[in-house]
Order: sequence, then C-alpha cells, then structure tokens
Amino acid sequence: MDTDGPAQDLVADVFARDCTSRAAFEDVTSKWASLVLVALGEGSFRFNALRRKVDGVSEKMLSQTLQTLERDGLVLRDVVTAIPPRVEYELTALGAAVAERLRDLADLLEASASQVETARRDYAGR
Amino acid sequence: MDTDGPAQDLVADVFARDCTSRAAFEDVTSKWASLVLVALGEGSFRFNALRRKVDGVSEKMLSQTLQTLERDGLVLRDVVTAIPPRVEYELTALGAAVAERLRDLADLLEASASQVETARRDYAGR
Repeated sequence: MDTDGPAQDLVADVFARDCTSRAAFEDVTSKWASLVLVALGEGSFRFNALRRKVDGVSEKMLSQTLQTLERDGLVLRDVVTAIPPRVEYELTALGAAVAERLRDLADLLEASASQVETARRDYAGR
Repeated sequence: MDTDGPAQDLVADVFARDCTSRAAFEDVTSKWASLVLVALGEGSFRFNALRRKVDGVSEKMLSQTLQTLERDGLVLRDVVTAIPPRVEYELTALGAAVAERLRDLADLLEASASQVETARRDYAGR
C-alpha cells in the first residue's frame, strides 16, 4: 500500500465508518431520503407536492431530508423567477444517477411484494 | 378501476404507506440493513464475522436487522452441521437481487466520494 499518497488516493469503501461514501450511502438510504430521491427521479417538485407524493413524511422531516441531499450535491433548490416566485426541488446529475439505482430497487420490491408477504406469513407461522 | 378483483391484483407502489413494497423498501434501506445486504452479497457470514465487516454495528442492532431480513425472506439462517455446529447467514435469491442493486448504489457512491466531499465543502462555505 502506498502510504505516501494523498488521502484522496485511498479507495472509497462504504464499509469503512469514516469514509465519505459510507456517509453518503447512509444519507441516500435513510428513512425518507430514498423515497424523496425516487420521487424527484420523476421530475422536479414543489415542497408541498413532494410532501403529498411521499405519503407520511412530516414537513420537518422532508425539510431536513432535502437539506441533507442538497448538502451532498444530490438535490438542487431552484428559485423560479415568476410572480409570485416559487421554489422547486430537482436532482443534480449525481442525484439522478442515485435515484435511478433506487428506482431499480423499488421496481424489484414492487414486483416482489407478494413474495415478501408470503415470507412474512411463513415466518409468523413458525 | 376494477373494484371486484382480489387485493393482490392491485399494483404495488413504494409511495403508498400501506403497501408491502413500501415496508420492504424501508426494511432494506434501513440504517444497517443496506450494509448487511451488501456484505452478504459477497458470501455467507457467521454472526461475528459479519459484525466485523459492517463497521460500527452493535450486536443488538445486527441481530434485529438479520431478523427483519429473515422475516422478509431476504436472508437465510443456516445451521451448518459440524462439531461444534455453526450458524451462517446467507442471502435468498430475492435477497441476492436486492443486494445486487444496493451494491450498484454503493459502487456509484464510492466512485463519487470526492464529488460529495466537494459539494459538502461548497455548502458549508455558502
């Protein structure tokens, strides 16, 4: 291992507690972030429309989630010049790439919902 | 909409609060489950080896996470007949498919770690 190289030469590893990729992985898979990213994968949303889309999220949690995703460079807060001006949330290029992978995961689980239900019934009956 | 059809004909939707796919999506993206699934994507693990791999997880949280994933039919608890007998955790076919998608996401974030770091620095400096 090259111990003289700068820190950015280290290979990122989601399993390493101090790695930025681990923090980013936790941010995008956190309770509301994953659904927010999948929603924004469908297009830009205003805050209240996004809140209706992500069934069950509170105003506070949605606001915190959007801030975390903005900080990680995954979501853009876009102030649209209009009368009255309005704020829209949209994905960055990296955010769109993340959302695509989460959408793949959501598709798989939607297609497997009955299989998961059967597994849960079997588990409860053991 | 066909209101006479059986419930299983409804289309699963991760955005619907009561849908099994939403619950499964939340289970696999929960704090430790996503890393546990990616780890098990590399092969079967004994409990303590898995705990070392998933840096930072407590015994209690790992145990709860494995139970949730077993219940959803994503992980198998395999008692290997040996002297002494040992317990190994491995993915089911559905678990492997889920793990593959989470591995894709982890790969993307590992490759984008420096981009996320830059975004965070910019955000902090605003």
